[in-house]
Amino acid sequence: MRRLVLSILVENTSGVLSRVAGLFSRRGYNIDSLTVGVTQDPSMSRMTIVAYGDDQILDQIKKQLSKLEDVKQIVELPLGDSVCRELVLVKVESTPQTRASIIEIADIFRAKIIDVATESLTIEITGEQAKLQAFTELLLNYNIKEIVRTGLTGLMRGNDDIHKLLEQ
Amino acid sequence: MRRLVLSILVENTSGVLSRVAGLFSRRGYNIDSLTVGVTQDPSMSRMTIVAYGDDQILDQIKKQLSKLEDVKQIVELPLGDSVCRELVLVKVESTPQTRASIIEIADIFRAKIIDVATESLTIEITGEQAKLQAFTELLLNYNIKEIVRTGLTGLMRGNDDIHKLLEQ
Repeated sequence: MRRLVLSILVENTSGVLSRVAGLFSRRGYNIDSLTVGVTQDPSMSRMTIVAYGDDQILDQIKKQLSKLEDVKQIVELPLGDSVCRELVLVKVESTPQTRASIIEIADIFRAKIIDVATESLTIEITGEQAKLQAFTELLLNYNIKEIVRTGLTGLMRGNDDIHKLLEQ
Repeated sequence: MRRLVLSILVENTSGVLSRVAGLFSRRGYNIDSLTVGVTQDPSMSRMTIVAYGDDQILDQIKKQLSKLEDVKQIVELPLGDSVCRELVLVKVESTPQTRASIIEIADIFRAKIIDVATESLTIEITGEQAKLQAFTELLLNYNIKEIVRTGLTGLMRGNDDIHKLLEQ
């Protein structure tokens, strides 16, 4: 089992998300996360998909995706040679006694307090998945009221962009 | 036309993303962004969907979503009373001449430089959509090589969580 991070360029049509998601669910492939957003060219969107599986399944996923008409490019983001980030918002229960220690944890992780209420703090944090997991595990001691995550997105390190990688 | 930010709690099944996305595309509703991630309860995920439309269409969207079996809760995040954030990674062309001014722009927006190469800088920025748009518009002067976005995610402000809002 390994982790696959795919960066795919798709046409920005109303059906593309449902077709890509449908391909995964019909074949029983598990998506760990999927994010999508328009690129510098408004007619194109870029999706970042994280999936786990053995090499055979991951190869199948890539082949099946490349058959979709809306999918223009598929690139696997190399683990050591890409920057991947996710955004998480966490609302944690806080009391006058616990507030300072929660803020301390947030500071250590360079997270931002974005809302303060009488009984809760809302924290914004970005990072790779290991960092985010360490952070949320620490907060479990304080009762997490709500957590929302965007899923992972990423780019290749260095000057190359995905178009160049495809030309090679 | 107004903007709708829906926070929906769904069962964490392999088909739920495809069913929700399919509902939008079959009816020709345009999704501006969709993010999904597991919650503190691993059997449940939370999706944040941004859509534009008139009141009638947005009401239809909510009704149709509530008919899906996987969908457990639907809440519209109130515009002034919620914190919404998106994560964007931008790779910008840079030269020894332009590097300093790009870093200056990043600093003003509290963005982070996460990769430096001979001919490019990669920047991580989070914020609400207006801030992100202002930032990317400024960078257009420097040739954006690549841009990836996660889509918007959000939480209610204050102590209330979405479960409480539903009980009211």
